[in-house]
Amino acid sequence: MSEDPATGRFIVFEGPEGAGKSTQIARLAARLRAGGHDPLVTREPGGTPAGDRIRGVLLDPDLRVDAATEFLLYAAARAQHVSEVIGPALADGRVVLSDRFAAASVAYQGYGRGLDLDWIHDVNARVTAGLRPDLVVLLDLEPSVGLTRVAARGRPDRLEVAELAFHLRVRDGFTALASAEPDRWRVFDAGEPAATLESRVWRAVAPVLGMRP
Amino acid sequence: MSEDPATGRFIVFEGPEGAGKSTQIARLAARLRAGGHDPLVTREPGGTPAGDRIRGVLLDPDLRVDAATEFLLYAAARAQHVSEVIGPALADGRVVLSDRFAAASVAYQGYGRGLDLDWIHDVNARVTAGLRPDLVVLLDLEPSVGLTRVAARGRPDRLEVAELAFHLRVRDGFTALASAEPDRWRVFDAGEPAATLESRVWRAVAPVLGMRP
Repeated sequence: MSEDPATGRFIVFEGPEGAGKSTQIARLAARLRAGGHDPLVTREPGGTPAGDRIRGVLLDPDLRVDAATEFLLYAAARAQHVSEVIGPALADGRVVLSDRFAAASVAYQGYGRGLDLDWIHDVNARVTAGLRPDLVVLLDLEPSVGLTRVAARGRPDRLEVAELAFHLRVRDGFTALASAEPDRWRVFDAGEPAATLESRVWRAVAPVLGMRP
Repeated sequence: MSEDPATGRFIVFEGPEGAGKSTQIARLAARLRAGGHDPLVTREPGGTPAGDRIRGVLLDPDLRVDAATEFLLYAAARAQHVSEVIGPALADGRVVLSDRFAAASVAYQGYGRGLDLDWIHDVNARVTAGLRPDLVVLLDLEPSVGLTRVAARGRPDRLEVAELAFHLRVRDGFTALASAEPDRWRVFDAGEPAATLESRVWRAVAPVLGMRP
């Protein structure tokens, strides 16, 4: 977003399942509330009533959903998320914390499933109307560790059962995106204890919000 | 599809709600069965388990679904429809009859809602993997007539309640597509009695299938 202090700030958390995104977002939101902010916490796919219905299709392990279909469903949910939730919240000056955003499609459907990266970037640019995160917090984790964490939660969803090689490609994707934009991305070792990670994330986020870390 | 007799034929019906597409498809399918064919009758959005779930999102009048979201949902359902249903049926040599296909997105989301036509054509080309109908049967109807017919059916869905001006733009879209490809498209006056229309449609379809009209 612009540097205009009247507009909000957009912080995105990316990384694999099991990296602790939900935990870290909740902890960051609590810090922000303690600091007088009223953050909007949201997620993809989802974040809107239509998006939550789309999420149900994407995560249903009993449905056949091919790579292009999967990408277009994420893109559809993202379009609605930007126009109905994220855009208005930022215009109201709020801090928006999103569990995944456009980069996830590049990593999962591009690097992971092999869809054309140029197409993914083009569709992302259209559905986000050019909106980009002020900061992307990448919680990086060895895929085998993330999968073990997820397995402990119970029945895996359709994406989680994909093979290890897929998750290694996804990690390469996130790493490539982070390397290409070091000012916008910060990479954290998600293998650290949650409290340690929380402190490290906060030191990266606070300056973006004009707060003292 | 190719001219190889071992592959099937793909016939698409387009036109507004209320034009009688379902009726005409059912009558054509009955004729084909009588002639020894085993046609696959399908529709968009839908045609697959995932597509039917997407259809539910698109037609729910209580959900907010913006133009880009709407288009991407149709495209997602179409991608799955082609890979899971239409493509395999054509490869098996079957005749496929579909109630709507790629052109509907050009007419409804492009001409109707004003999305970039180049983008729609590009996404259509990707999700159809280049598959194009052998014949498009356009059942053309004055929008005010179609809306009156639909209203008589009961509670209109989200698309049906759009204003008349929208439906006039959609009709312009279909007409433009038909004019641009007169060999692939045939335009019929959907105001004709169903039996008359059935005969006219049959005379256009039969040669495409190598049958006597």
